Amino acid sequence: MTTDEKALELHEKWNGKITTEAKCHVKTREDLSLAYTPGVAKPCMEIAKNPDDVYKYTWKANTVAVVSDGSAVLGLGNIGAKAAMPVMEGKAVLFKEFGGVNAVPICLDTQDSQEIIDTVVRIAPGFGGINLEDISAPRCFEIETKLKEILDIPVFHDDQHGTAIVVLAGIINALKVVGKKKEDCKVVVNGDGSAGIAISKLLLKYGFKNLTICGLYGILSKDIKDLNWAQKEMAEVTNLSGENGTLKDALVGADVFVGVSAPNIVTGEMVKTMNKDAIMFAMANPVPEIMPDVAKAAGAKVVGTGRSDFPNQVNNVVAFPGIFKGALEGRAKQITEEMKLAAALAIASLVPDNELNENNILPEAFNPDVANVVSEAVKANI
Amino acid sequence: MTTDEKALELHEKWNGKITTEAKCHVKTREDLSLAYTPGVAKPCMEIAKNPDDVYKYTWKANTVAVVSDGSAVLGLGNIGAKAAMPVMEGKAVLFKEFGGVNAVPICLDTQDSQEIIDTVVRIAPGFGGINLEDISAPRCFEIETKLKEILDIPVFHDDQHGTAIVVLAGIINALKVVGKKKEDCKVVVNGDGSAGIAISKLLLKYGFKNLTICGLYGILSKDIKDLNWAQKEMAEVTNLSGENGTLKDALVGADVFVGVSAPNIVTGEMVKTMNKDAIMFAMANPVPEIMPDVAKAAGAKVVGTGRSDFPNQVNNVVAFPGIFKGALEGRAKQITEEMKLAAALAIASLVPDNELNENNILPEAFNPDVANVVSEAVKANI
Repeated sequence: MTTDEKALELHEKWNGKITTEAKCHVKTREDLSLAYTPGVAKPCMEIAKNPDDVYKYTWKANTVAVVSDGSAVLGLGNIGAKAAMPVMEGKAVLFKEFGGVNAVPICLDTQDSQEIIDTVVRIAPGFGGINLEDISAPRCFEIETKLKEILDIPVFHDDQHGTAIVVLAGIINALKVVGKKKEDCKVVVNGDGSAGIAISKLLLKYGFKNLTICGLYGILSKDIKDLNWAQKEMAEVTNLSGENGTLKDALVGADVFVGVSAPNIVTGEMVKTMNKDAIMFAMANPVPEIMPDVAKAAGAKVVGTGRSDFPNQVNNVVAFPGIFKGALEGRAKQITEEMKLAAALAIASLVPDNELNENNILPEAFNPDVANVVSEAVKANI
Repeated sequence: MTTDEKALELHEKWNGKITTEAKCHVKTREDLSLAYTPGVAKPCMEIAKNPDDVYKYTWKANTVAVVSDGSAVLGLGNIGAKAAMPVMEGKAVLFKEFGGVNAVPICLDTQDSQEIIDTVVRIAPGFGGINLEDISAPRCFEIETKLKEILDIPVFHDDQHGTAIVVLAGIINALKVVGKKKEDCKVVVNGDGSAGIAISKLLLKYGFKNLTICGLYGILSKDIKDLNWAQKEMAEVTNLSGENGTLKDALVGADVFVGVSAPNIVTGEMVKTMNKDAIMFAMANPVPEIMPDVAKAAGAKVVGTGRSDFPNQVNNVVAFPGIFKGALEGRAKQITEEMKLAAALAIASLVPDNELNENNILPEAFNPDVANVVSEAVKANI
């Protein structure tokens, strides 16, 4: 039986991968009078007096809404709200299993940015954080930015920032393996959607200077026409030497390649034009931009993918559960750039120097320390 | 320690009365590939092809949103979304404990009817039903009516219909105790808010003919000015003899009194003007319209209240968990009048004739058969 067939069979058996459960069981009249009426009136009145007490008396303190409009689900595209549910439920499972955080899948029957913003703002009182998921670019940037302005709880678009944090963690360790410094490296990011732009921003924030983004039009520069506002913004802060050309041109002399794009678009020939000991994150799923063996044969030293069957898997599950755990425990109002950098450094630190090598730059997703180490790093930066 | 103090202490200890839990644990790479990527893509694609499969592969099949705007919470009034959370969480506990139904508290940061409608419609794809709660009248009528028109999942305002169903169940059994027929009875409902109007409608649907509603203005009639549209609608179908006057006037010659109003507004003197063997449901909380001993001393035969410390408690928990359980299992698109009547008859049937007496007209909330019997009755009427 293939993974697909098995997954389908299991999804039917599970009929929902999560449940809600009562922490307070109601077996007697007294139980009922304490968990519900008349006793419940007392915490209600306390919260009415002091709204912040909602964190003290309800699940808001430890609960995230996983919100999607189904417009960019996995590699499947715009499949809509209902079809996005298995992914959002899966995310809710990971929040609980890896971070101990309650999570509720909320799939929205609208793809209008303003309606998404309005809806999330209106359901926010009962949630301690909002994890946006699988919303297409450039709408995802506007939605996240506006929600962060309006809400006083953390809003985090995992496709952007979770991916960016794990990629940065991987690059931090890969640089140690190859003995290069961030200041000296040329980075090429292929993909100008939500992940590509967020990765580029976080790498710049971390201190990379020479970074070039490529899209379907080739190298992103101020000369390219018909860019959306998010791409235009990035054209201002990347490719400072003003190169024009294709991905192939961009890779000449590059030290780091990050692909969040399409299968098989990087060849061994292109890798050979990169600098010695190149670092490559080829994260197109399920087929990467270049297969690891091809990249290595052409001279790449460290290769990561999104797949679990190759070394160095870039897996968001090492980031988001711990990030929300920390943000919720520390009652952060936002997840800031500083918190993201701290999370990346914490993830990188989970691979001890004496275990670090070209095939081991990122911690195992099932390492039980990950969420705690990440959450402590996040809390220390609130 | 008082119930209030104990409830507050427990709410702080619980810090959320519900949690989300994973049904599929993720301990290995294979687990991850089946519950999340890449396996999860398969059920997503199946749902994209056939949207109805969302019931097969996700928790929609057994999950309700408990939605409130915090405008009419318990007897506390308009305390807002955050302060309503402990009640909605409590409701979610009861859904799970009594009906086995997952429930998510959704407290809305808006009290605009259209915004509430829009928000519920947008979050509906991931839920199998909507339980509206503690929304003030007359807005609750409009919100429920429009949501029922738009959505293809059951929408149920428990303050209205849950209460109405249990009151009807109690009256059905009380009539057996006093040996009267519905056709011969004069019913007075005191309270023209959400519960009073819903109770009146269901009693009329069940077959009572002579029913009078009273509000702050006295007896509801077409002569009263400044009624809202919901009250006007009821003025057309109640008080057919066109009485005018006060609650005191209405009670003269009445057989059944139903109070969803205010403490201590019915006196023993007023009960004495009712017909012999009067049935009284005095449900103001925590202090009823008349205390049971006063009502009995004045000649009432069967007295129910909302309180657990007197006989014949009218408790919605015997209704809503089973109603949603049945509606979800039978994939009902609406909860119809027929389903409500069937639920009331099912609840009444749970007190066997040989156990029926003036102090035992309703089943115990903790009777383990209740939810199953109610859900089967609902399913039989889909």
